[in-house]
Amino acid sequence: MQSSLTSFIEDNKQFIQQELHSALYQLDIPATLKESMIYSIEVGGKKLRPILLIASYGAYGDDKSSVIAPAIALEMIHTYSLIHDDLPAMDDDSIRRGKPTNHIAFDEATAILAGDALLTFSFEVLACDRHLTDNQKVFLINELSKASGPKGMVAGQLLDIEAENKELTLEQLERVHALKTGELIKFAIKAGAYVGNASTEQLDHLDEFAYYLGLIFQVQDDILDVMGDEEKIGKPVGSDEGNNKSTYPKLLGNKGAIKQKEKYVKLAKDALFQAGADQSFLMSLTDYFSTRDH
Amino acid sequence: MQSSLTSFIEDNKQFIQQELHSALYQLDIPATLKESMIYSIEVGGKKLRPILLIASYGAYGDDKSSVIAPAIALEMIHTYSLIHDDLPAMDDDSIRRGKPTNHIAFDEATAILAGDALLTFSFEVLACDRHLTDNQKVFLINELSKASGPKGMVAGQLLDIEAENKELTLEQLERVHALKTGELIKFAIKAGAYVGNASTEQLDHLDEFAYYLGLIFQVQDDILDVMGDEEKIGKPVGSDEGNNKSTYPKLLGNKGAIKQKEKYVKLAKDALFQAGADQSFLMSLTDYFSTRDH
Repeated sequence: MQSSLTSFIEDNKQFIQQELHSALYQLDIPATLKESMIYSIEVGGKKLRPILLIASYGAYGDDKSSVIAPAIALEMIHTYSLIHDDLPAMDDDSIRRGKPTNHIAFDEATAILAGDALLTFSFEVLACDRHLTDNQKVFLINELSKASGPKGMVAGQLLDIEAENKELTLEQLERVHALKTGELIKFAIKAGAYVGNASTEQLDHLDEFAYYLGLIFQVQDDILDVMGDEEKIGKPVGSDEGNNKSTYPKLLGNKGAIKQKEKYVKLAKDALFQAGADQSFLMSLTDYFSTRDH
Repeated sequence: MQSSLTSFIEDNKQFIQQELHSALYQLDIPATLKESMIYSIEVGGKKLRPILLIASYGAYGDDKSSVIAPAIALEMIHTYSLIHDDLPAMDDDSIRRGKPTNHIAFDEATAILAGDALLTFSFEVLACDRHLTDNQKVFLINELSKASGPKGMVAGQLLDIEAENKELTLEQLERVHALKTGELIKFAIKAGAYVGNASTEQLDHLDEFAYYLGLIFQVQDDILDVMGDEEKIGKPVGSDEGNNKSTYPKLLGNKGAIKQKEKYVKLAKDALFQAGADQSFLMSLTDYFSTRDH
């Protein structure tokens, strides 16, 4: 990894953590609820989605203060989805990022409520921001609710649960991932560029870029699940196999999955070039996503 | 009940049901998710919150199309909260309004996701409405997220769970209710009047009115739980007692609870008079709320 990318990621990770910290610590709410929300926000996440949002903004604009609200709102939505996905009635995971999941550290009722609270609070964060215009807020809230709601992430999670113990085609698998993880990644790319005043044409190309980036993210996740280092990925290797999930390696074999990923990387970079963003950190982040080891 | 109030409630209930119907049926989403969302929205609810919102609007404005979005968004939020509250990890209720609760009719995972979907979709409904200005949308989203999130309803639900098997003071009980049910009622009153262009001073008085209306709603709920007709309320009489919940009748006795309700009714009506809305349906709705039998 280039050293400039390393520091871009590190600097922005810290920046996002600080902003999340100050947004959550000032909340005057019941202690258990606050602790539970903060626990999952701070439990060692990579903050990849807000970092992508900032990188996308950076390809067009240069005053980072206007992307704080969409960046932290996005991370809150991502975190709520992990809390609810980990619940016993859903994926029933007790470990996430090497730490007890929210309902283990607290209890199920608190975890459900902490998820609901983070989801709802993300819209408050956008609506009461001081840097964005009303017009921008409405655009961002519209996009974020579409990406994370019944047309996006929630639909993906439902299809993912329904797909357990079933053999999916590559096309069906891509649809699940496009909804479950892709929509939020698309929001990251689109929201950043939009606040940076990218043109409609550029936004269209970025939409395509984001689609492939989401798939790259997912193939690599599947690959790490079969070939990764348990300590680095923070969960047991082979857990997808145990859950009877359709994955790229299962559908295409290990080599086929790697080849598929390379195809997506090429398509993503082509779209990035068309969007005039091939000199930005989005370019090196694409390589980073496709080769990450955790 | 006056016949004009009866038809106001009936007409607006139908109006809201139609608007919710057309908002949800057009969704192109996975079938189970859609069925589950629609199931809880349509399972015989009274639509009291949106009716209050429309009544509050009617005290100041006269083109109902601009309150459709906040009215249906509010009902979606209310419905999501019922779905999640009924879950086994929360209140563990299997019957609501005389019908199986969402996680019984579907399953727990679907119920969690249907709740998440309704919550998220409510913000999309507001953000993409065609009748409201961006300025109004931002105001309404800000108010709705505050009322329903960690500073409002979610905090109330957490405190309510924590209060089980504990003896609360009247003050503590009022705080729980103000958050758990009061905040959404406040939103109904405030949002309607705001879209109807009520003045800041009028909004302040309505805030006070809504506070007492919320408490009236809750005392009456508690009273019905000990003295109501099982068939009309759609749940077993005495279920609060079984859940070891603090209630007004338990704290003040049955007569004391009725007296407390009458005190709130007087305070609510005073505030309504100050807000210049004492000739509106809000006045008769206050009586309706305090004497309802289900």
